[in-house]
Amino acid sequence: MLFAKEVYVERRALLRERVGHGLIVLMGNNDSPMNYPANGYKFRQDSSFLYFFGQHRDGLAGVIDCDSGQEWLIGNDIDIDDIIWYGTVQSVSEMAHEVGVAQSLPMSALTELVAAAQKAGRKVHVLPPYRYDIKIQLGDLLGEHPLQVKASQELIDAVVALRSVKSGEEIREIEAACAIGYQMHTTAIRLCRPGLSEQYIAGVIGGIASSYGCITSFPSIVTQHGEVMHGYPSPAPLQEGRLLLVDAGAETNGNYCSDHTRTSPIGGRYTQRQREIHDIVADCHDLAIQLSKPGVKYKDVHLDVCRLMTSRLKELGLMRGDTEEAVQAGAHALFLPHGLGHMMGMDVHDMEGLGQANVGYDSETRPSSQFGLASLRMGRTLQKGFVVTDEPGIYFIPALIDLWKRDKICEEFLCFDKIETYKDFGGIRIEDDILITDDGCQVLGEERIPYRAAEIEEFIAQQND
Amino acid sequence: MLFAKEVYVERRALLRERVGHGLIVLMGNNDSPMNYPANGYKFRQDSSFLYFFGQHRDGLAGVIDCDSGQEWLIGNDIDIDDIIWYGTVQSVSEMAHEVGVAQSLPMSALTELVAAAQKAGRKVHVLPPYRYDIKIQLGDLLGEHPLQVKASQELIDAVVALRSVKSGEEIREIEAACAIGYQMHTTAIRLCRPGLSEQYIAGVIGGIASSYGCITSFPSIVTQHGEVMHGYPSPAPLQEGRLLLVDAGAETNGNYCSDHTRTSPIGGRYTQRQREIHDIVADCHDLAIQLSKPGVKYKDVHLDVCRLMTSRLKELGLMRGDTEEAVQAGAHALFLPHGLGHMMGMDVHDMEGLGQANVGYDSETRPSSQFGLASLRMGRTLQKGFVVTDEPGIYFIPALIDLWKRDKICEEFLCFDKIETYKDFGGIRIEDDILITDDGCQVLGEERIPYRAAEIEEFIAQQND
Repeated sequence: MLFAKEVYVERRALLRERVGHGLIVLMGNNDSPMNYPANGYKFRQDSSFLYFFGQHRDGLAGVIDCDSGQEWLIGNDIDIDDIIWYGTVQSVSEMAHEVGVAQSLPMSALTELVAAAQKAGRKVHVLPPYRYDIKIQLGDLLGEHPLQVKASQELIDAVVALRSVKSGEEIREIEAACAIGYQMHTTAIRLCRPGLSEQYIAGVIGGIASSYGCITSFPSIVTQHGEVMHGYPSPAPLQEGRLLLVDAGAETNGNYCSDHTRTSPIGGRYTQRQREIHDIVADCHDLAIQLSKPGVKYKDVHLDVCRLMTSRLKELGLMRGDTEEAVQAGAHALFLPHGLGHMMGMDVHDMEGLGQANVGYDSETRPSSQFGLASLRMGRTLQKGFVVTDEPGIYFIPALIDLWKRDKICEEFLCFDKIETYKDFGGIRIEDDILITDDGCQVLGEERIPYRAAEIEEFIAQQND
Repeated sequence: MLFAKEVYVERRALLRERVGHGLIVLMGNNDSPMNYPANGYKFRQDSSFLYFFGQHRDGLAGVIDCDSGQEWLIGNDIDIDDIIWYGTVQSVSEMAHEVGVAQSLPMSALTELVAAAQKAGRKVHVLPPYRYDIKIQLGDLLGEHPLQVKASQELIDAVVALRSVKSGEEIREIEAACAIGYQMHTTAIRLCRPGLSEQYIAGVIGGIASSYGCITSFPSIVTQHGEVMHGYPSPAPLQEGRLLLVDAGAETNGNYCSDHTRTSPIGGRYTQRQREIHDIVADCHDLAIQLSKPGVKYKDVHLDVCRLMTSRLKELGLMRGDTEEAVQAGAHALFLPHGLGHMMGMDVHDMEGLGQANVGYDSETRPSSQFGLASLRMGRTLQKGFVVTDEPGIYFIPALIDLWKRDKICEEFLCFDKIETYKDFGGIRIEDDILITDDGCQVLGEERIPYRAAEIEEFIAQQND
């Protein structure tokens, strides 16, 4: 349990108030089998369950009756076999008490609570399940096929409203994750040497994440092929003169995340061409920090970044034509096929399981269907207390270049002959986590991971002294 | 693909022959969501799918028609979006060709293949699903509730018969896993110092596993509470004078495992009491190596180890009475509530998902229901080419001691007054992986991790020089 009892009591009261009527059922996670039933991946509790019920054990559910105000923590107590294999843990009743929940019941009682509500014609609110065991459990509870469980829009909206704005104590936990992220990334920059492998570096930084926190906040991206958005580490050795893109984050024991990306030169020095592209990405990254503040739509920040990127790519002879028209047409998306950033918190893409349109958009800002912009996970108006990532990138994706050239997509804005010469470039991304403050934003993390080309080169040089 | 095409062709031919008739469907694994759909744990292919079809991608299935001899690799090809996010991968048809499978089909065709077989009254053979997405998929395919999918005993028996006996190239891969395990364990012994935390050490050795292989073969057990069989690492600092039990293994990129346990003194020296118990466990461990050979039941090796342990615990005044009677009564299980070992291979508990009774037992050796012996995962007659773990342990489990004392369980063999004084002891386990050879067995791993108390102390002293 990360915070004081009162925090959870208040969160549940706010949730009950927002949802209004019916029975809220928040499922905790179970162990997730890797290659046989008893060999599970590292246990990760569901974030919304944690947010409202605070307990880390598997096999729990939380129930809130919005009308009566009653609350239950549901779960089975352990027996002597569990104690031998997994040690002594608290009873479910003790866990309930700890987070200010008055009642506890065994898991079998969940069926009865739900059946009684349904019989009385009351709505049972559940979040969209993303784990298949929970899909089966909810399907059985609600009488639906496991892949067709219907989530409650009222519950989704209420959870998103509460979890979007981070409290001071949540920010401190994210800062703690950033401190682990600092160690991971400075270690990766230090190890960015010819001969070592992507897999080796990913292993080392994964070890740092687990040593100081609970796990990496997502599978680390450590790749010489930065042009692959989610390039998983390979055992191939790093090659002098190429770039290494590392996109990785930590998760604290309390399950708050960090998420940073740096793209470093293998061998210590960027080439002229790499430095030119890196500088553009760094300037785009800085621009987003200058523009982000309460009242501004993150979609507009994204588009301003795209404008800057386009005008700078024109200077390099990679794009042409009118900047505004090029951005409206989405021509820049050949280089930046993803969005500027996403919400971050207990999930690295915070609340992504509740639906991108519910989390990153609202009634006045709707998701786009244009290639590139459609991948912007966060578009809506920024509020104080939001934590979002700022992660522009420029990529040269051979298959995409071939496709756009063949189909003459945006050809009036793209200099394909020049672009062709960059097909061996890879990709560059720079990412930090920013907190929206009263009148602007703040980069999270006590120490800033070096991010400008010159800073990274200097950091590497110092390490090698 | 780890081995040559011919290896997979031959394995499937042998499988087809053993199963005889009907349609075999082997499901590959999918990504496993951690905290939202797109944030998956590290992908781990299903071991049986890998054994027969060799391919690592998610979203695949392999089908073998035992009657016609036809084989299909089933899966959907990727599109340009996948290429942007995950890079270029082979087509399903190319992957099929690579492992000698003539035909490939999209995933939608699996439904038709299964429906056609069922319509023709032919048996569809599946293995017991352990992942819930696969339970749903097979449930839908076979018209059953996802939690009630019936596995084929013929298929289980055939897979167990083939996978139980390891080939020379499989042994080399297990040896490679043991080499990573050597680095993990010697690092853990070196870090076994007051002030560092269990979590820190687990993180470091997990990093080594991922740097040189793909993942730990199971969540590492790193604990000062060795008496908890699966004690997960805590952030609490190590305390001088206690023991640190580390049970951890690596998995190679080709998905073969290692599994070792060492119990080291925090601060560098065992106390007299710790050394006495450690020596007993080490002698039990050596005895198992002396006795293991083809034709011997591993259950008998387990029982001989229990006899030695009982006679030695009698010398320490912790047990009493006739050794044989005590072992028959299961009195020693207060100290050793688990079995001597398990099969090991592509799964660290090899094939455990196919059922302990199918893997570790046979018609002449049946599982026991006695406390302790019931947890012996491997009891049947050893054959050349089996790889099993040898992992005796002695634990002082306060809750179990209290329960047995209260209920007077085996009180004629247990000196509870003396045992009470060991309640703060913790537990000791020593584990290595052994290969059954022509006339005995061989401890796997080129270098042996120090395991005798004196060796471990000497190793620590050398490191600190």
